[in-house]
Amino acid sequence: MIVGSVNIDSIETPFGSAERIPGGSAPFIGLAASNFNVDSCIVSVVGGDFPKEFIALMKSKGIYTDSIEIVEDGKTFFWAGKYHNDMNSRDTLATELNVLETFNPIVPDEYKNAEVVMLGNLHPMVQLGVIEQMNNPKLIVLDTMNFWMDNTLEELKQVIAKVDVITINDEEARQLTGEYSLVNAAKAIYKMGPKFVVIKKGEHGALLFHEDEMFYAPALPLAEVFDPTGAGDTFAGGFTGYLARTGDYSYENMKTAIINGSALASFCVEKFGTERLEHLSKKELQQRLLQFKSLTQFDIQLT
Amino acid sequence: MIVGSVNIDSIETPFGSAERIPGGSAPFIGLAASNFNVDSCIVSVVGGDFPKEFIALMKSKGIYTDSIEIVEDGKTFFWAGKYHNDMNSRDTLATELNVLETFNPIVPDEYKNAEVVMLGNLHPMVQLGVIEQMNNPKLIVLDTMNFWMDNTLEELKQVIAKVDVITINDEEARQLTGEYSLVNAAKAIYKMGPKFVVIKKGEHGALLFHEDEMFYAPALPLAEVFDPTGAGDTFAGGFTGYLARTGDYSYENMKTAIINGSALASFCVEKFGTERLEHLSKKELQQRLLQFKSLTQFDIQLT
Repeated sequence: MIVGSVNIDSIETPFGSAERIPGGSAPFIGLAASNFNVDSCIVSVVGGDFPKEFIALMKSKGIYTDSIEIVEDGKTFFWAGKYHNDMNSRDTLATELNVLETFNPIVPDEYKNAEVVMLGNLHPMVQLGVIEQMNNPKLIVLDTMNFWMDNTLEELKQVIAKVDVITINDEEARQLTGEYSLVNAAKAIYKMGPKFVVIKKGEHGALLFHEDEMFYAPALPLAEVFDPTGAGDTFAGGFTGYLARTGDYSYENMKTAIINGSALASFCVEKFGTERLEHLSKKELQQRLLQFKSLTQFDIQLT
Repeated sequence: MIVGSVNIDSIETPFGSAERIPGGSAPFIGLAASNFNVDSCIVSVVGGDFPKEFIALMKSKGIYTDSIEIVEDGKTFFWAGKYHNDMNSRDTLATELNVLETFNPIVPDEYKNAEVVMLGNLHPMVQLGVIEQMNNPKLIVLDTMNFWMDNTLEELKQVIAKVDVITINDEEARQLTGEYSLVNAAKAIYKMGPKFVVIKKGEHGALLFHEDEMFYAPALPLAEVFDPTGAGDTFAGGFTGYLARTGDYSYENMKTAIINGSALASFCVEKFGTERLEHLSKKELQQRLLQFKSLTQFDIQLT
């Protein structure tokens, strides 16, 4: 069960620009998770201006999309951004909530028993509304960002209290807890609810914290990052999709899930928007997973 | 064979301050390498104000120190710095070269056949002077920093052309090559001479590049970084000491060498200056190596 935004994005990078292409947390999550052949469903909303072909494409990947409400006389959430030369920072040029402003999420009956819930980046009250409609899911994963910490912190804390895993970036973890050290930030987040904390560090990889344990997944160093939009959502979608596929929500299995998320994110940035994820073969993913293995494996002989 | 500065440092961090303590690239490198019981020698220079007990301490760790010239009526290189709250940036408050200004390095005859040379951070012409005195070493490792790129780039390039391995940080790799992507920066550095490029990313770990291969060593996430001074030198010293100990200069063995360097650097930052490295047991190092193993190991089952 995936909830998240479905956008129209306009993106400028040093390599070029893309005008009004499909985006948003839910499509990136859904497409990433579809690599694990999970039965998934997206709850979201779009306006009449959203391309129907793209919804059909998601459907063709096994994602249940009838739960994406279409407000025919409304406009889809629109975001425009421009990345700087280093690709690590960006200016937001436009944010038009449009149909998202009054969105009331409705989980289809047939997905209320889903084992795994992925709360993609969106207003915390929408995320909370989805949690409340679910029948005892085994795992709830939350992705969010600083925007909600700045504007709806109390609501966000209500959501955080109800989830098993939170994925946020390093700066957001520091902002949320007031702790500079990520080790201490993770401990502070445990006290807010989640038993597992995933801290995304972009090109520097990701950290998984659970009790006194830590796991460090690198990002694949790339010669070129074409468009970072959606990389964090793709990471979260790959992570959660892998867990849903295996049905094993242990710390050990989350390590492998994070590597899968990182591998998918490394594809995402190769082209604009969701383009690369739309045409990704099983073989390509498996080859990249092997690259992650060779990137991190070493021998230690204690003498 | 180690060449590098031997300093007196005054350090301020958010946790406290230390006045006029021993430091410099050579002591950190030497102490780190001493964990591998290698026969090492430091070529450097100090003034009459440098504490003789500290030289005796290095000697007690198996480091040959008679090659540290003592200019009795001169003053030791002095550095003072203040770290900001995030510990990733610092202000240099004082840099007094003193006896380093006219230093002419002399490699003792008995170390001219050393298999491994570690050029610690210092003026490139001093580094070059040491290379020229050596008889065909099997491995030369260079550590340097942006200061020399800003002020003595041509001399630095002469050194780079003669070494097998270079260790620099990410910003320095970008400055040296004009390439933002570290993958492309490494390729540009290959063309300057080194066959192996190690890019240090501080709290984000380190990358080893060789031909088309990459290895990513994480830094151990720490609850507290007490004093980062010397962490890069310690990393380089641990890396090189491990290689010298094993006599295996292959890419595969360098992966393990980098993990050893990272483990030693993670101790270095726990106390002021060299203090933690002075009292480090074999058992502590081995336990930390196992922590690095559990930090990075994962299972991938391709389906």
